[in-house]
Amino acid sequence: MSEGLRVTIWNEGVHEKTNPKVSALYPKGLGHQLAQYMEQVPGIASVRVAELDDPEHGLTDEVLENTDVMTWWGHTAHDRVDDAIVAKVQERVVQHGMGLIVLHSGHHSKIFKNLMGTSCDLKWREYNDTGEKERLWVVDPAHPIVDGIPEKIELELAEMYGEHFDIPQPDQQVFISWFQGGEVFRSGCCWHRGLGKVFYFRPGHETLPIYHNETILKVIANGIKWAAPTRVAGGIFRGNAEPLEKME
Amino acid sequence: MSEGLRVTIWNEGVHEKTNPKVSALYPKGLGHQLAQYMEQVPGIASVRVAELDDPEHGLTDEVLENTDVMTWWGHTAHDRVDDAIVAKVQERVVQHGMGLIVLHSGHHSKIFKNLMGTSCDLKWREYNDTGEKERLWVVDPAHPIVDGIPEKIELELAEMYGEHFDIPQPDQQVFISWFQGGEVFRSGCCWHRGLGKVFYFRPGHETLPIYHNETILKVIANGIKWAAPTRVAGGIFRGNAEPLEKME
Amino acid sequence: MSEGLRVTIWNEGVHEKTNPKVSALYPKGLGHQLAQYMEQVPGIASVRVAELDDPEHGLTDEVLENTDVMTWWGHTAHDRVDDAIVAKVQERVVQHGMGLIVLHSGHHSKIFKNLMGTSCDLKWREYNDTGEKERLWVVDPAHPIVDGIPEKIELELAEMYGEHFDIPQPDQQVFISWFQGGEVFRSGCCWHRGLGKVFYFRPGHETLPIYHNETILKVIANGIKWAAPTRVAGGIFRGNAEPLEKME
Amino acid sequence: MSEGLRVTIWNEGVHEKTNPKVSALYPKGLGHQLAQYMEQVPGIASVRVAELDDPEHGLTDEVLENTDVMTWWGHTAHDRVDDAIVAKVQERVVQHGMGLIVLHSGHHSKIFKNLMGTSCDLKWREYNDTGEKERLWVVDPAHPIVDGIPEKIELELAEMYGEHFDIPQPDQQVFISWFQGGEVFRSGCCWHRGLGKVFYFRPGHETLPIYHNETILKVIANGIKWAAPTRVAGGIFRGNAEPLEKME
Repeated sequence: MSEGLRVTIWNEGVHEKTNPKVSALYPKGLGHQLAQYMEQVPGIASVRVAELDDPEHGLTDEVLENTDVMTWWGHTAHDRVDDAIVAKVQERVVQHGMGLIVLHSGHHSKIFKNLMGTSCDLKWREYNDTGEKERLWVVDPAHPIVDGIPEKIELELAEMYGEHFDIPQPDQQVFISWFQGGEVFRSGCCWHRGLGKVFYFRPGHETLPIYHNETILKVIANGIKWAAPTRVAGGIFRGNAEPLEKME
Repeated sequence: MSEGLRVTIWNEGVHEKTNPKVSALYPKGLGHQLAQYMEQVPGIASVRVAELDDPEHGLTDEVLENTDVMTWWGHTAHDRVDDAIVAKVQERVVQHGMGLIVLHSGHHSKIFKNLMGTSCDLKWREYNDTGEKERLWVVDPAHPIVDGIPEKIELELAEMYGEHFDIPQPDQQVFISWFQGGEVFRSGCCWHRGLGKVFYFRPGHETLPIYHNETILKVIANGIKWAAPTRVAGGIFRGNAEPLEKME
Repeated sequence: MSEGLRVTIWNEGVHEKTNPKVSALYPKGLGHQLAQYMEQVPGIASVRVAELDDPEHGLTDEVLENTDVMTWWGHTAHDRVDDAIVAKVQERVVQHGMGLIVLHSGHHSKIFKNLMGTSCDLKWREYNDTGEKERLWVVDPAHPIVDGIPEKIELELAEMYGEHFDIPQPDQQVFISWFQGGEVFRSGCCWHRGLGKVFYFRPGHETLPIYHNETILKVIANGIKWAAPTRVAGGIFRGNAEPLEKME
Repeated sequence: MSEGLRVTIWNEGVHEKTNPKVSALYPKGLGHQLAQYMEQVPGIASVRVAELDDPEHGLTDEVLENTDVMTWWGHTAHDRVDDAIVAKVQERVVQHGMGLIVLHSGHHSKIFKNLMGTSCDLKWREYNDTGEKERLWVVDPAHPIVDGIPEKIELELAEMYGEHFDIPQPDQQVFISWFQGGEVFRSGCCWHRGLGKVFYFRPGHETLPIYHNETILKVIANGIKWAAPTRVAGGIFRGNAEPLEKME
């Protein structure tokens, strides 16, 4: 990967068009906010934004074949994402090693549910006027995703996500969130799926300035670097195999 | 579970009708062979056999709601299993805690692939006239699935399955197979998925007397007991949550 | 294990002699409180209490050889536990499959640190007059340790333990605690170590009536049952191995 | 880590002085053979060799404080390694994030056993005149340690190591070996321990030219890069913690 990673930021892009609170926070869209940060990260060579309303949701074969790591943000229109495109994204991850970073309400996206095999359901609570604090605690300080991150990240105001979060046990649990109202949540979770890597990261509610927070953006950038494709030399063979030559 | 487990043995049941070698080994079908053993296992209260050609593949709502653990053997007709029934089985596992034991070529069943989120592809090789040995080595001797099982199980003649087996890393790796022709395979794998438990166990080729082997049958029985449903008192709540009462 | 489990409750037994608050809560000692509950649990055949001040800390060879599962509570006198006895306990777990349930401040016991290989350090905070709530959330509802347990356990008053808890990633993460003051903690953790199973469970501060809480006691009982020894038939062979007979 | 990794190659260095077969293969010692390769790996800034017979085994405080990743090869003199130095190495891994690559017979080193908490025992068999093949199969093709490595590595002649290998379940299982004589072995295993990462890699018998094999050397180099320290900004606090300010 010496040439640097090619990143595609997938953004649903619906709230930005319908909710003035969201468009005020993210005038060019939540995807562009992420892209702007990622473009200046060393090791990332190129960043493109793709959205639901683009032709083929912006995920043509040409885009998929030229993406090393994809981030996914969706919330209100998961069901409008075409099944055939979801299948292609899943195949890129599992069979070709594309990294996938699933953000916040993306927990209920088709692609995440397909890769997990579970419902990905959870508890939630909108923040209220007096607010609700979140603290993300690092529980695996050896993990490259927390490089340069402090032992906890505090968000003054957050939407709550609570357990039980219906996911397979993460291969690596990186963050666990505390919420003021009484819940915990596995907020940073890593899995390998086939040739690819998947990182779920909770923060990112659309009506809060989460993606203006430098530490949150740095975690996502670290996640992208962690999810870089591995290249097994010669690839993985599947199918009918010859036996080893006769043994003495 | 003091009343004992209610087990459903799902068997594709196609080879038995078309291949005399299979019907010679399993005159009443491979499913009945498993059922016959399980019926006499302490802790198992009842065993039923369901097959592809039964109405609704034998998996009516009434059967599903009265099954604690299901075993699944399929090979040649995975695509004939109805998607709606697969979805129901998956929901029983993830949302209601039904255990699932996936056997041998069931690795390519819809239900297993849906629960894993990966291709579940592998290498394989038919045994030849001079045969091919398999040895299953216990790599997690603390696991209840190997209770009463020796440190290795040797099968004189086996079809080979080899890595890379495209599955998520098992939560617990119980057996690894050695094959005479030069391959290894993760032959006994455990996962939790939502409220349910899943055990994949490799042995079981239809033209070999694998399910006449007492040790193999005992592993499957142990797997059924391990996969018994857990009952979270009051269940798991999903959805919009109230905050903790005001804190001092 | 049809005859039932033989349980040894190891209790440091120092606070009971020096702190009237502790002896008021546990007049016969914290160990006897646990023993009294366990004695009536189906599947547990016998319970004995062993303490630091007993000869050989109550852990003679005869006791160790006749213990299926041991629980361990210590706090103020970890360094007074003899290294040679710790080594024997570790050997019973790893080489003979004895289950070990480590409770609360036992996180800093020699036996736990030896089995983990890490410092087992953590953050802590004594509860104050206005108190501090703890909520233990179930994050693995398929695990047998939460059978019959609700999705969260609330303790009105608890000493806080917080991350980073310096342990190896649990093989299975069962509970995560929320604390009112702003921390989270991996409160219920399972590992296999050799032939044995280890369960760490956080609740149990000596000046609070934690072990009078029926739900907490039930979790410990479930942990004991989960940690029952597995018997690999014929045992595990270590050492210089013969090759397979000449292959064709 | 932009300045590159500082690597210390620890080599027992006893066989080289007593066995002409070993000194013929590794005239300057096995450690120097590894060092020579690592020195030209991009991302590795400096490489030093330390040996048992050096003062303080070559592992002075100054060396330890300036080592990002250490490799460890030992076999015949594990008991001659000073306990106090082992404790320092363990502390560097767990509390300061130094990576550790344990090679071949290092499985029985004090440092590995301390970090694992188990016996680390295994089966073994010396190769004979007609030889014994080993094949290392990649079972986690997404892992950075297999970047540029083929799906299997074949060694014409190898000493056998077989299961049961008494280690905690790896956090990530990268390679599984097949041996001609009938055994399997978990040959490439990754763990996090505190702030540090540990990689065990099996190949490396002293009387065979294993460390002249470019693919084996590349795996070790990949392991070193994977084990690079992570820096939690501000570090991890342990001890008595203040509560969050009063909540509304």
